[in-house]
Amino acid sequence: MAVAKEVETKDKHIKNLANIVGGAQSILYKKEDLLAYDCDGFTIHRHLPKAVVFPKNTQEVANVVKYCHENNLPFLARGAGTGLSGGAIPLNGEVIISLVRMKRLLSVDLENRRAVVEPGFVNIKLTNSISDKGYYYAPDPSSQYCCTIGGNVAENAGGAHCLKYGVTTNHILGLEVVLPNGEIIEIGKNGILDPPGYDLLGLLTGSEGTLGIVTKITVRILKNPEAKQTVLAYFDKVLDASQAVSDIISAGIVPAALEMMDKIAIEGVEAAAFPVGHPKDIEALLLIEVDGISAGIDEQIHQILQVCKSRNVREVKVAQDEQERARWWANRKTGFGAMGAISPDYLVQDGVIPRSKLPEVLSRINQISEKYGLRIANIFHAGDGNLHPLVLFDARKPGETEKALEAGSACLQVCADVGGSITGEHGVGIEKREEMLFIFNDEEIIAQTDIRDVFNPKNLLNAGKLFPTPGRCVEVKKGMKEVITSSKHKIL
Amino acid sequence: MAVAKEVETKDKHIKNLANIVGGAQSILYKKEDLLAYDCDGFTIHRHLPKAVVFPKNTQEVANVVKYCHENNLPFLARGAGTGLSGGAIPLNGEVIISLVRMKRLLSVDLENRRAVVEPGFVNIKLTNSISDKGYYYAPDPSSQYCCTIGGNVAENAGGAHCLKYGVTTNHILGLEVVLPNGEIIEIGKNGILDPPGYDLLGLLTGSEGTLGIVTKITVRILKNPEAKQTVLAYFDKVLDASQAVSDIISAGIVPAALEMMDKIAIEGVEAAAFPVGHPKDIEALLLIEVDGISAGIDEQIHQILQVCKSRNVREVKVAQDEQERARWWANRKTGFGAMGAISPDYLVQDGVIPRSKLPEVLSRINQISEKYGLRIANIFHAGDGNLHPLVLFDARKPGETEKALEAGSACLQVCADVGGSITGEHGVGIEKREEMLFIFNDEEIIAQTDIRDVFNPKNLLNAGKLFPTPGRCVEVKKGMKEVITSSKHKIL
Repeated sequence: MAVAKEVETKDKHIKNLANIVGGAQSILYKKEDLLAYDCDGFTIHRHLPKAVVFPKNTQEVANVVKYCHENNLPFLARGAGTGLSGGAIPLNGEVIISLVRMKRLLSVDLENRRAVVEPGFVNIKLTNSISDKGYYYAPDPSSQYCCTIGGNVAENAGGAHCLKYGVTTNHILGLEVVLPNGEIIEIGKNGILDPPGYDLLGLLTGSEGTLGIVTKITVRILKNPEAKQTVLAYFDKVLDASQAVSDIISAGIVPAALEMMDKIAIEGVEAAAFPVGHPKDIEALLLIEVDGISAGIDEQIHQILQVCKSRNVREVKVAQDEQERARWWANRKTGFGAMGAISPDYLVQDGVIPRSKLPEVLSRINQISEKYGLRIANIFHAGDGNLHPLVLFDARKPGETEKALEAGSACLQVCADVGGSITGEHGVGIEKREEMLFIFNDEEIIAQTDIRDVFNPKNLLNAGKLFPTPGRCVEVKKGMKEVITSSKHKIL
Repeated sequence: MAVAKEVETKDKHIKNLANIVGGAQSILYKKEDLLAYDCDGFTIHRHLPKAVVFPKNTQEVANVVKYCHENNLPFLARGAGTGLSGGAIPLNGEVIISLVRMKRLLSVDLENRRAVVEPGFVNIKLTNSISDKGYYYAPDPSSQYCCTIGGNVAENAGGAHCLKYGVTTNHILGLEVVLPNGEIIEIGKNGILDPPGYDLLGLLTGSEGTLGIVTKITVRILKNPEAKQTVLAYFDKVLDASQAVSDIISAGIVPAALEMMDKIAIEGVEAAAFPVGHPKDIEALLLIEVDGISAGIDEQIHQILQVCKSRNVREVKVAQDEQERARWWANRKTGFGAMGAISPDYLVQDGVIPRSKLPEVLSRINQISEKYGLRIANIFHAGDGNLHPLVLFDARKPGETEKALEAGSACLQVCADVGGSITGEHGVGIEKREEMLFIFNDEEIIAQTDIRDVFNPKNLLNAGKLFPTPGRCVEVKKGMKEVITSSKHKIL
């Protein structure tokens, strides 16, 4: 093994870690280098890591993990750092294990519809690698041009087309995982559907980096649909748009995507990089995509147009060509970032509601906006009730960040109140730890932390994420206190 | 609480359990009554339970469980007892908690596409209850006319139409669960998609009754497809039939079902209750169903007919009406039982293989058949590579049961060898415990038993299922010995 001569530090852990990953070119440890790793896509909390290492293969990951485990160094894994709930923020001065150098497409098996990738492989590259043969990878988070599939597994990432095709967990057939003690296990070997025993694939997927580090991923790939068509519909009233969503689903159509943007969201995307000329005085637009066999699509588009008309649509049109379709999607997919064009700062939230509650929830979010004096834009994956309230604020104004966080949390409380959930696809991370108590009671949290402790008994791997923090638990919910002080059932 | 005066026993546990469930009409404890509960659909192992109780609600289940937990009585849950791997067999003289009296349909929410049922609710009744409104429940195991949805959750049941629609786990939105200590938790409250935290829904589904007892289930319901069409295709050569399966999938068609039966299976179904006149001299038939929007279906059927012709089909036809379609399906769905018409006994196996390995696997199963001198019929969910070899034998002949079990295990070894799995939908139970080692190594088994121990630390709930037995582990695989004798990592 190469000796890391160039590591200019007396810290023995840094020296040893550098040795494990092959020298100074594979580790960052100086403060100026670490600053880029003090947060992820959730920028409100910032903490410096102890170091960032860049292993090149599973064995190096396992060796780093084993070293941290034996020396009681907190550690966590990081992909592209695009996560929106703070899952990759080194709260405890972790050693960050960056997986960006493990970015190979290892194999593609078209006949059995699967591909094997390393965790640092960028989402969109998979589809790009197989599209000429007529295949694609379905989960399409808006960040797909830079986010990694390893990160997608950690967060169980969704995307606009998950209405029809399901979220990441529905597309994961096998995982190689480095456990927090450095052991390597394989789950769902060879990517076979529904392996026997407990559903460890499902358990690991979406566990937000708290149970293990994924080092190899077998994913399902799909045949390109024969055809797709895309509809854009403008509504004067948001209530009509909501009703149209319900009507489309009730008609038995399962669109590939069914997106909604409200007035403020439209103002944002029209002021940003990809305007398409949406009218500014409408309350909502729907972006609806249908795919499948050509012959069936025309009939579905016809039904969708009928529904929109029956719900007082102002204007509705079908994309005339792939260029137009691509423009509409670029406009939608930059929706979050577009808020930067109309507000100095924004906080994106991620709730889920039953579709039937859409009008009620929108009106309550409006009340929250008024109460806090902050504008809130809404972008929805409307078809599956996944709602993204975007709270606009100005961090330079004293107290406004706190107000924005409170307003975001209040939106999630509304989602929970109507029988929904506090996250559809962005994860809990550090952002929504306390909001877990909107959904789960003590026993239900403990059932989960007990599982974490099986995998991660020293809690060195990504500690402090996903579950409520002790102090806040007591504050938020009575009856947690005993639990928290019991050594068996520590929550953090 | 009613006093169970009529319980004619001095056994204090029986008396106390009777009291908990409301008296003698809700408990069986005499040997002649218990005989009906000494096995399930896997009839090769038989053990008498201590008693069978029939709780009427969640609280009674929790009270029975708490009593067993406190008094160290082994216990397990049972639905209709149709399981095929022995998951409900009381290996340790368990108290059986029968859920057949908890059989209500609690609610249906068409707008948000979900229904809530008790665990003893029979699978087909759900579809029957909502079909007049145009909805259905997708998972359709062949036993759906008598099996319960609670049992389906425990086994993660599949069915012919799971190729397109997924297995049970893809349709479960929420569970109420009695944990092995009697605590009641709710997972996925209100049936919201993708609840935050670890995927406990996925973990519980398919855990074969070893982690908890499900007392309430929120399921997804689907809109009836606008239309369906069914094709029956006869092939002289099984290789051509296999190739047709690959071609159909490669064409980008996702049939609702894509079933194959080989020559011996056809002999069986034609000798049983629902013959449809299949020719007896063909090597294989395919039963293919397509559903969706009417306009798209004709095109798909046309493509399927073309594929069959290009693969030397002898005869191919489309069902002319619902009666003909129903006849074909009745013939297929009685496939297992039909073996009784051509053999005194049969053992059904349940492997999964990559579709591309179908011809190789069939030829190796043929060799196994020759080696053991036992006929093996094959029924497949061919579209997803889920294979059901049916080993025909005569239990009256000394040693033939053992030979059948060995031949069945050898078929699973073949599945594992080609990168497949040892169960697609029937579960591991007691039948395939040892075969788990074809798929998992020590660490991978331990990762699972450690999870079980979190939920089920006394291992009173359904002990001895799903994981290899200690003695056999040592025999089958070196290196397990240390693990087994360690108290922390007991396997059983």
